[in-house]
Amino acid sequence: MSKHFGPDYVRAIAPYQAGKPIAEVAREFGLDEANIVKLASNENPFGVPESSKKAMAQVVADLGRYPDANGFDLKAALAKRYDVPADWITLGNGSNDILEIAAHAFVQKGQAVVYSQYSFAVYALATQGVGARAIVVPAAEYGHDLDAMAAAIDADTRLVFIANPNNPTGTFIPAAQIEAFLNQVPETVIVVLDEAYNEFLAPEHQFESAQWVRKYPNLVVSRTFSKAYGLAGLRVGFAIAQPAVTDLMNRIRQPFNVNSLAQAAAIAALNDTVFLEEGARNNAAGYQQFVEAFDELGLEYVPSFGNFVLVRVGDDDEAGARVNLALLKQGVIVRPVGNYGLPQWLRISIGLPKENAVFLAALKQALG
Amino acid sequence: MSKHFGPDYVRAIAPYQAGKPIAEVAREFGLDEANIVKLASNENPFGVPESSKKAMAQVVADLGRYPDANGFDLKAALAKRYDVPADWITLGNGSNDILEIAAHAFVQKGQAVVYSQYSFAVYALATQGVGARAIVVPAAEYGHDLDAMAAAIDADTRLVFIANPNNPTGTFIPAAQIEAFLNQVPETVIVVLDEAYNEFLAPEHQFESAQWVRKYPNLVVSRTFSKAYGLAGLRVGFAIAQPAVTDLMNRIRQPFNVNSLAQAAAIAALNDTVFLEEGARNNAAGYQQFVEAFDELGLEYVPSFGNFVLVRVGDDDEAGARVNLALLKQGVIVRPVGNYGLPQWLRISIGLPKENAVFLAALKQALG
Repeated sequence: MSKHFGPDYVRAIAPYQAGKPIAEVAREFGLDEANIVKLASNENPFGVPESSKKAMAQVVADLGRYPDANGFDLKAALAKRYDVPADWITLGNGSNDILEIAAHAFVQKGQAVVYSQYSFAVYALATQGVGARAIVVPAAEYGHDLDAMAAAIDADTRLVFIANPNNPTGTFIPAAQIEAFLNQVPETVIVVLDEAYNEFLAPEHQFESAQWVRKYPNLVVSRTFSKAYGLAGLRVGFAIAQPAVTDLMNRIRQPFNVNSLAQAAAIAALNDTVFLEEGARNNAAGYQQFVEAFDELGLEYVPSFGNFVLVRVGDDDEAGARVNLALLKQGVIVRPVGNYGLPQWLRISIGLPKENAVFLAALKQALG
Repeated sequence: MSKHFGPDYVRAIAPYQAGKPIAEVAREFGLDEANIVKLASNENPFGVPESSKKAMAQVVADLGRYPDANGFDLKAALAKRYDVPADWITLGNGSNDILEIAAHAFVQKGQAVVYSQYSFAVYALATQGVGARAIVVPAAEYGHDLDAMAAAIDADTRLVFIANPNNPTGTFIPAAQIEAFLNQVPETVIVVLDEAYNEFLAPEHQFESAQWVRKYPNLVVSRTFSKAYGLAGLRVGFAIAQPAVTDLMNRIRQPFNVNSLAQAAAIAALNDTVFLEEGARNNAAGYQQFVEAFDELGLEYVPSFGNFVLVRVGDDDEAGARVNLALLKQGVIVRPVGNYGLPQWLRISIGLPKENAVFLAALKQALG
């Protein structure tokens, strides 16, 4: 032990595997960056909105100053948009930060966290980071089995993570099922409803989860600007919860966790309905483009409600890694999900029509 | 208990008190933002370097993408600059993030952290955030008493924070004293040497702490781009340590903790020696401007090695708050330090000559 630093539970963590950056793939495979298509990280293929670029240009001169630690303007905009008081909002350095803050604020070593098999990798990391016990509930049809999750909550449980839509599988839980679940959860257990992909839902699937926080004092709704809003590189997410909950999260939150450009860009993006609508249209069309091709190729996929599709590229447990490598050699970056226990599958982000076509052509060659 | 969330140690945290943003003071006191002088957060009065602005402009188009989770280019630049392998570096969302990561990576509930009275407030927050016991060692002449700190390390201690120069007092510990301390610390105790203000040291006080990590496997050198480099609003700091240590820190680090613009801006700033030299000259001149005025006013101050000065503005325990309010009404924001146990003092950041003059005039008026 003498040479070891840190708690056992920290030394046991396997770090997050990010999507390979374009520059890294170019270096590794000797490719030209301009010819690489990256559909690996569920990013917005339109990039950052012009409205956000303009908003950032206006604050560049102030970057020698610390960001507003209270995020006054961004919280005001979010409060107006979601019809909650500003102090019901906690800002995060991406919603990843919200998930980590929740774990640190509500759970300590020896307590337990419930989440679903095949749900977002950061739930496991956040749980391990506080030395808590993970209660991983088997998935049903690659999605959350909420009845089983409610039953799995034990006396040690302090936190439940739910992803809706779920990443990496794309599954969706209708509002009524979530509410039924919330009604079963003990009032001392925090439920983080991670809606990173909410904006991609068709209007008939949307529901006002932000208003549920009025009814459920243990609910934290988590959102991000990294997906539909196109601000992944800037890092900004937020949580909505009752003030007794946000007050605790703010004690754990690093005071300057959200940088100044991200705050300005997020306000602009929040009000850029044209950008959001264009993104939604592109996403719906790209989804059709993918699933028609997968049907044609006879590939199984999980019906997705996000901006990505999980597709099974073979029947053996090397299939995901093999096809991924064949795609990389052709300059197409997607996400292998063997670390999620899905070694036969790949997760493909929906890009621009042309990017989708490049991927599909490369996939046919990789499978052929 | 039924209505309480979170561990006791989280509920006991008093959140960080940030310097008031200019916009907030303008709102509260009905002032014009353009007339407000902020010398409250040890920021760079020259703002962000032009070299960083140019570097940011080149990556704006990529902001829809996640940042490079491995920070390849920035780590390469830092590795070259500090003559260490790239995997000896951990990037942080400001050095605040480095301090928090260190606490989470190396300390668990029930263990202990040693730091000095009157040292940076985040040491206490990071310690509380993991439920650890704080061993706060009384200061000597407002600075670190390293002999007492070495003696205070007990069997539970896993981490020591040292700030050099120290914030908020500005005191400095010479290299030989730090090395003597490092030689006394048990090899299982991590020492975080927080050098946020290192670049303001005169050449005769500089030493290559980054090279000490070769000799001390338990040393973490922490640096920031928020002070001398003028990038506070962007959030980027870093740690240098042996790979066994950075490996653990990377398990706790959020994968996308440093945004894309910050990575690009930091590379540019790191090589902008002209900007650094101009800042150092301005800081030295501003320090003279302050201390001559304080001498003239008969005010005690702590000789400072940073970009700020701690000055005693009265003999009663309301003095700091009273003079601070009088300054705010005149549109001058400085930092009260009652929360550090220094209620008779104020911490003033060194600004541009004109800003310093505005502050000094307002101070004279406030002191009546």
